[in-house]
Amino acid sequence: MVHYSTRLDTAFAALSDPTRRGIVERLGNGDASVSDLARFFEMTLTGIKKHLRILESVGLVATKKVGRVRTCTLGARQLDVEAAWMARHRQMLEARLDRLGEFLERTKGNES
Amino acid sequence: MVHYSTRLDTAFAALSDPTRRGIVERLGNGDASVSDLARFFEMTLTGIKKHLRILESVGLVATKKVGRVRTCTLGARQLDVEAAWMARHRQMLEARLDRLGEFLERTKGNES
Repeated sequence: MVHYSTRLDTAFAALSDPTRRGIVERLGNGDASVSDLARFFEMTLTGIKKHLRILESVGLVATKKVGRVRTCTLGARQLDVEAAWMARHRQMLEARLDRLGEFLERTKGNES
Repeated sequence: MVHYSTRLDTAFAALSDPTRRGIVERLGNGDASVSDLARFFEMTLTGIKKHLRILESVGLVATKKVGRVRTCTLGARQLDVEAAWMARHRQMLEARLDRLGEFLERTKGNES
């Protein structure tokens, strides 16, 4: 339970920043070096590396250093637990709307 | 673009805390007063109100005060933009795996 919870915490926190989501989207189109990403997002190398560390720690990005170049690629993390949490939330909302609908239907006659 | 981005930022940030996700899940089972929630999560009223303010600001929770009791209910926010972001991420991952599979298939003959 604690592990599951921590996993959701860190993934949602990682996704709460537009640059980090942008990096994930950019890498979805193909690998890029750290310098490529810094240029693309108009950030310093230090700034982009900070974001990459967070994304790497939750498995959304993987990096590999060959010679002097560190290449970034999309990580294997599928966000399946996060997607499942959201799907459950949607079901709860729909169930609540159904109950509300039934209530309104049941009490419709009372007004006349 | 900025609005869309801010919306994702705040929703993911709101969901990055286990107590806040717990409150949303608890309210999925039915409305509760602020005191109910404080008792349930073994928190102070101040602590739980802080979480409720964040959840209310992103539309995940709605509250209504009748007399001296503030009742909390599930908000109307459907997390559809967030779910769409995650679905797109999954598609990107799958496309990457497909490309990798094709590459391995294409280069299989080279080894023999």
